[in-house]
Amino acid sequence: MTDKLVVIGGVAGGATAAARARRLNEHAEIVVFERGPYISFANCGLPYYIGEVIKKRDDLMVTDAESFSKRYNVDVRPSCEITDMDRQNHEVVVYCHQTGEQYRESYGRLILSPGAEPVRPPFARGVDAQNIFTLRNIPDTDRIKAYVDENKPGRAVVVGGGFIGLEMVENLAFRGVEVTVLEKMDQVMPPLDYEMACLVHAHLSEKKVDCRFNDGVESLEKTGDAIVVKTESGTSIQCDMVVLSIGVRPETGLAQKAGLKIGETGGIAVDETMRTSDPYIYAVGDAVEIRQRVTGAKALIPLAGPANKQARIAADNVMGRCSVFRGSAGTCAVKVFEVTAAATGINEKTLRQYGIPYRSGYTHSGSHAGYYPGSETMALKLLFSPGTGRLLGAQAVGKIGVDKRIDVLATAVYGSMTVFDLEELDLCYAPPYGSAKDPVNMAGYVASNLIKGDLEKINWDEIKDIDPEKEVLLDVRSRIEVKTSGSIEGAVHIPIDELRGRLGELDREKTYIAFCAVGQRSYLAYRILTQHGFSAKNLAGGFRTYLAAAENITLM
Amino acid sequence: MTDKLVVIGGVAGGATAAARARRLNEHAEIVVFERGPYISFANCGLPYYIGEVIKKRDDLMVTDAESFSKRYNVDVRPSCEITDMDRQNHEVVVYCHQTGEQYRESYGRLILSPGAEPVRPPFARGVDAQNIFTLRNIPDTDRIKAYVDENKPGRAVVVGGGFIGLEMVENLAFRGVEVTVLEKMDQVMPPLDYEMACLVHAHLSEKKVDCRFNDGVESLEKTGDAIVVKTESGTSIQCDMVVLSIGVRPETGLAQKAGLKIGETGGIAVDETMRTSDPYIYAVGDAVEIRQRVTGAKALIPLAGPANKQARIAADNVMGRCSVFRGSAGTCAVKVFEVTAAATGINEKTLRQYGIPYRSGYTHSGSHAGYYPGSETMALKLLFSPGTGRLLGAQAVGKIGVDKRIDVLATAVYGSMTVFDLEELDLCYAPPYGSAKDPVNMAGYVASNLIKGDLEKINWDEIKDIDPEKEVLLDVRSRIEVKTSGSIEGAVHIPIDELRGRLGELDREKTYIAFCAVGQRSYLAYRILTQHGFSAKNLAGGFRTYLAAAENITLM
Repeated sequence: MTDKLVVIGGVAGGATAAARARRLNEHAEIVVFERGPYISFANCGLPYYIGEVIKKRDDLMVTDAESFSKRYNVDVRPSCEITDMDRQNHEVVVYCHQTGEQYRESYGRLILSPGAEPVRPPFARGVDAQNIFTLRNIPDTDRIKAYVDENKPGRAVVVGGGFIGLEMVENLAFRGVEVTVLEKMDQVMPPLDYEMACLVHAHLSEKKVDCRFNDGVESLEKTGDAIVVKTESGTSIQCDMVVLSIGVRPETGLAQKAGLKIGETGGIAVDETMRTSDPYIYAVGDAVEIRQRVTGAKALIPLAGPANKQARIAADNVMGRCSVFRGSAGTCAVKVFEVTAAATGINEKTLRQYGIPYRSGYTHSGSHAGYYPGSETMALKLLFSPGTGRLLGAQAVGKIGVDKRIDVLATAVYGSMTVFDLEELDLCYAPPYGSAKDPVNMAGYVASNLIKGDLEKINWDEIKDIDPEKEVLLDVRSRIEVKTSGSIEGAVHIPIDELRGRLGELDREKTYIAFCAVGQRSYLAYRILTQHGFSAKNLAGGFRTYLAAAENITLM
Repeated sequence: MTDKLVVIGGVAGGATAAARARRLNEHAEIVVFERGPYISFANCGLPYYIGEVIKKRDDLMVTDAESFSKRYNVDVRPSCEITDMDRQNHEVVVYCHQTGEQYRESYGRLILSPGAEPVRPPFARGVDAQNIFTLRNIPDTDRIKAYVDENKPGRAVVVGGGFIGLEMVENLAFRGVEVTVLEKMDQVMPPLDYEMACLVHAHLSEKKVDCRFNDGVESLEKTGDAIVVKTESGTSIQCDMVVLSIGVRPETGLAQKAGLKIGETGGIAVDETMRTSDPYIYAVGDAVEIRQRVTGAKALIPLAGPANKQARIAADNVMGRCSVFRGSAGTCAVKVFEVTAAATGINEKTLRQYGIPYRSGYTHSGSHAGYYPGSETMALKLLFSPGTGRLLGAQAVGKIGVDKRIDVLATAVYGSMTVFDLEELDLCYAPPYGSAKDPVNMAGYVASNLIKGDLEKINWDEIKDIDPEKEVLLDVRSRIEVKTSGSIEGAVHIPIDELRGRLGELDREKTYIAFCAVGQRSYLAYRILTQHGFSAKNLAGGFRTYLAAAENITLM
């Protein structure tokens, strides 16, 4: 058994693994093969270079083969594709794209970091057009940027509203392109639940992005220089370019060909040490299936953070040091114009899918003290266990401080903390940064109130089903708020400060569904009503969540 | 025993307690006495109103007595001071500042939220000048702002470089005042350790703030409209105004007079339910002594976050619901011009004081991906247990994202997490927000390397003591870096990428202290050297930490 490590793939996971391996073992032979011409490029930065937010193409190159070689004494071979693995003989078959040469390279241990490839659906396969794109690497980026630079497209259709789709929407808009998003689901950004995604939808509308939900591509047709996108619902959209960002699929071709075990989710199966079914081969990154930390189930989580961590762990194990990857909470964030949407843990859809009992809570809190300039309201949704209050997931949308709160909540998810812990968390407070009661504390209070029975809530999607014979919507906002932003149809209006004095107007036979803008005054209304013998509920997330989700309007 | 709750103090703690008590009990009688004319004002916002960052005085008023009364059905009495407590008869003695009236008010339970008062040292007591200020409340703020507005002072001396001192420095500078900070210690912001505070010092210098350390006020003398500050070191500073921000002292006068137990730190003693030595009396906020979460020791932590949490907990217990306060990690942040300095847990000074074994690690990481515009380096220091790696404290200084990382680390401190957990944390990553390896992960890696023995370090303050016969400083930065920013005297220079090829130039009898800008390349140098049989150490935090702390220069 030789000490030689061969790494297949030289971008995020591969480069990290090679560097870590070298630090641990100065004497091992290390060879990195990268199919593409560039190693270790900033793949998460690609859309921003197209949008000219990142000005210089060079900035996308974290390092180059020569520098990396020098620094880490690693034999880096770009444009070299591994076409086969001979596991019996511990060799890989290399095809060099530049010379056309083919050769075999031996290995002691192998780390696979092939990544994931953009899904190219059937409708796109037969169409021979220069202006239908996917985005994965530097050459893709160069093609899209050159096309935008030279052709100044007027309209683009982005198919798929996930991370890359949304980033392309923003960056094409920065280049003056009008964008339509075509999304088969009823929402963008799948890690968010529908009502949270609605806040992003509203912002996209504000930015004049044409969003079409529940509709997919039927066909793409070339008409001169233009493309006509025919959708499943029967509409046609003529545009100058199409970006396909339907999702990614783990690049498992080589692994499958070599007979490595593929998991049920379609990723390469690995154990906690990142070892595949072959004890001499490890795999990391978007191509592997890992453990979702909250559900414990196997999952594909194609994100850069987990990929880098896995790479380090694989290198540790290759170099004889035991190190384990305990899964990912799937923490993620995306910038959509001025808004940040972020999430950690699992969402309501997934909880339902796994049949995990849960409760949810909504808050709308200021990013920092309201009296200090620039504070913005963020919507925050917590999902937690009904009994223990254990935090299962969190989602947030807003203009400032969203990533901070999701990072705090990701840490809490990691630490198996409860919503009661969130009440107590001692976070940075000075007026520019937060509030004495941070949004995370507030979310903890609301969740804790729900668990302790201090508050009974009704969700936005249940409002349409209320029985007017038995239930009355009670708007407790001020007169000026109702005048300015309207109310929910059929609601009785009694401002919170008048409620105690006007209890006589209410009907003891009915249940009052109190609401205000965000759920805080209506919580007080709930407390007043129930302690005076009335039956009451509180509209979770208030008029804001209701408006965004039920009526697709946002007050953000 | 009546149901009646009396709250003494109507600012942060008092108002929160009254509101929470009302939500829990709609029927109790609740009376709030506030000595000053305003309740529930934004005390943390006061410096920013003086600096005209907060434009409208009204914005400082979170609510007023009338609105609060209406909303919570609470009897609010501003300008009413409690002069005595008759614990035997469950009565307080009230003096009304407006009418001069004195009366007794009964209580069932009492919550004390008197706050803390600025320390007014002996030298300031005898001086009758209109331009010597302390800042605690709205009238103080009005006085300072009016003075600045009307007199356009040219120079101010701020005595004390804690939170309020630093906020006053910034806000007076915004008003065009030249500021001198006079600080008895060798640093500003006591929660930071010296070398971290040095980064703040450098930024203050950049902003033309005249910082004088290790020097206190000997006397203040009025000379016409000016004040001459004579310092202990014998210098004189003539200025137009003096702000005393030496610190605060728990306002325990009333509690002491009534015979309530005072803790050894000088705060009102309370149990976990916030109950004082009198079972009918609770106390919250800056006046009480609480548990420092990491040391477990009693401490004064006069911060708004803990005060609000305590108020809620006291109200719970008063209303018959058991709720406990488990201490504070002392998480804090301050904005100093463009820089944020923040900390959580305990610092090195305190660890030494308590004799708690610890190790420390430094990193300098980008606030977000370097290729995305606007990334700024932040300095991060971790303190952790040598054996278990348990996180004991963290400090950070930088321009962006500092509060986020300290909040994550505060959550980790709360959850008794280790530096190994920090390596694994799955945090938000998209180029505008972070890196695939977040600064928190990086800090975890460095700490974990230290614990596992993968890295041996030397601290900035040990460099002055190295023996040139045995130890050699080895600068592994690039030629251009050395040319641009210099090096440490006596250092040998071998760029990292040449090190393997030049090992023959090194002396096996000596220990090489490798350093680079931040400690990352020198970590690789350490790995190369030790695996080739050399003795080596890594300068923790690199040239950046060394320069700032040892030479008071910053490259931030």
